[in-house]
Amino acid sequence: MSGKFIVIEGLEGAGKSTAVATVSGWLEANNVSYIKVREPGGTPFAEALRDIVKSDWQEQVTPQAELLLMYAARVQLVENVIRPALQQGTWVIGDRHDLSSRAYQGGGREVDASVLQQLKQFTLQDFAPDFTLYLDINPKVGLSRASHRGALDRFERSKIDFFTRTRNRYLEIANTEANIAVIDAEQSLTDVQQSIVSALEQQWPA
Amino acid sequence: MSGKFIVIEGLEGAGKSTAVATVSGWLEANNVSYIKVREPGGTPFAEALRDIVKSDWQEQVTPQAELLLMYAARVQLVENVIRPALQQGTWVIGDRHDLSSRAYQGGGREVDASVLQQLKQFTLQDFAPDFTLYLDINPKVGLSRASHRGALDRFERSKIDFFTRTRNRYLEIANTEANIAVIDAEQSLTDVQQSIVSALEQQWPA
Repeated sequence: MSGKFIVIEGLEGAGKSTAVATVSGWLEANNVSYIKVREPGGTPFAEALRDIVKSDWQEQVTPQAELLLMYAARVQLVENVIRPALQQGTWVIGDRHDLSSRAYQGGGREVDASVLQQLKQFTLQDFAPDFTLYLDINPKVGLSRASHRGALDRFERSKIDFFTRTRNRYLEIANTEANIAVIDAEQSLTDVQQSIVSALEQQWPA
Repeated sequence: MSGKFIVIEGLEGAGKSTAVATVSGWLEANNVSYIKVREPGGTPFAEALRDIVKSDWQEQVTPQAELLLMYAARVQLVENVIRPALQQGTWVIGDRHDLSSRAYQGGGREVDASVLQQLKQFTLQDFAPDFTLYLDINPKVGLSRASHRGALDRFERSKIDFFTRTRNRYLEIANTEANIAVIDAEQSLTDVQQSIVSALEQQWPA
């Protein structure tokens, strides 16, 4: 029997690491073997691309180059790690996947959705997660959690606009496509964890 | 007045370095300021991608990842080096450009031409060389020049098939699109140089 691919998605500060731990705990409680991966990265080649994306460069890094590197890293991870694991029956927990590109680049940066669809088709064809947990948070809450400050400066307000477009795209997709659960990430930690476990048990009843 | 972008294209062993030197000499004789660039590379970010593409990896490097890195490097070079130079009136000599992807990946690797067109449109929009010199050589001649040996082994014969498809795609494009000159690279060095200068003088009459 082949494994399943579960992806955790959401804005920075939404609690993805905690969600990965909650999913791990649920799989362990069910005696399911699994691995954890993150994007971009997860293979030596993809980690080299992650380093390039995250480095500071004297030159302007174009949004196009950044997006192509994300898909290059993604196809390496899928072909060399995720697909082989699933074929062996191992489940995979992913910290971000294709939905991040669609939300951040498509929503936040307003890259044409058809471009993203073409890149996805070229790199992954019909490959897709079995289940996605989208941790929804108001970006103002996320930013204030992160900054521990009151009023937002001009840069932070422009980030708010970007993250608001990103969040709206996440929600649009979650509300129209199958196999995506929206988790309210503004709840208490215990309630978030319970919501995640409930969503998993609804997707895969005992 | 804006500069012009001249690209040298062709299979390995066709004599691209010599052609770059010939074009440089022609520009110098005409008191035209110019820079030379190569693909993939030409900016710190793009050279980092070149290192990744040319390195040996334990994992399989997918053709998709390789192609995306080529376009990521290309858009960095165009936006950060080539366009600014042309806008200042500096001419640019390019050792390979988009036509290499169309010939090697599209012809040699048989990637769908529409994928390449989509990547080109996403990264470069309408940007294109003013003139391309395609150095045409029979791949058997190129390989035997390189190997200095007689019979080809199985790997070399499979390379022949790949390079034959690549050459055929180069010729198809050169014969149907504007501003590409086909230079017979099997001529003597002097004749190749004279053919290049003639092509330049026909493109830009004194």
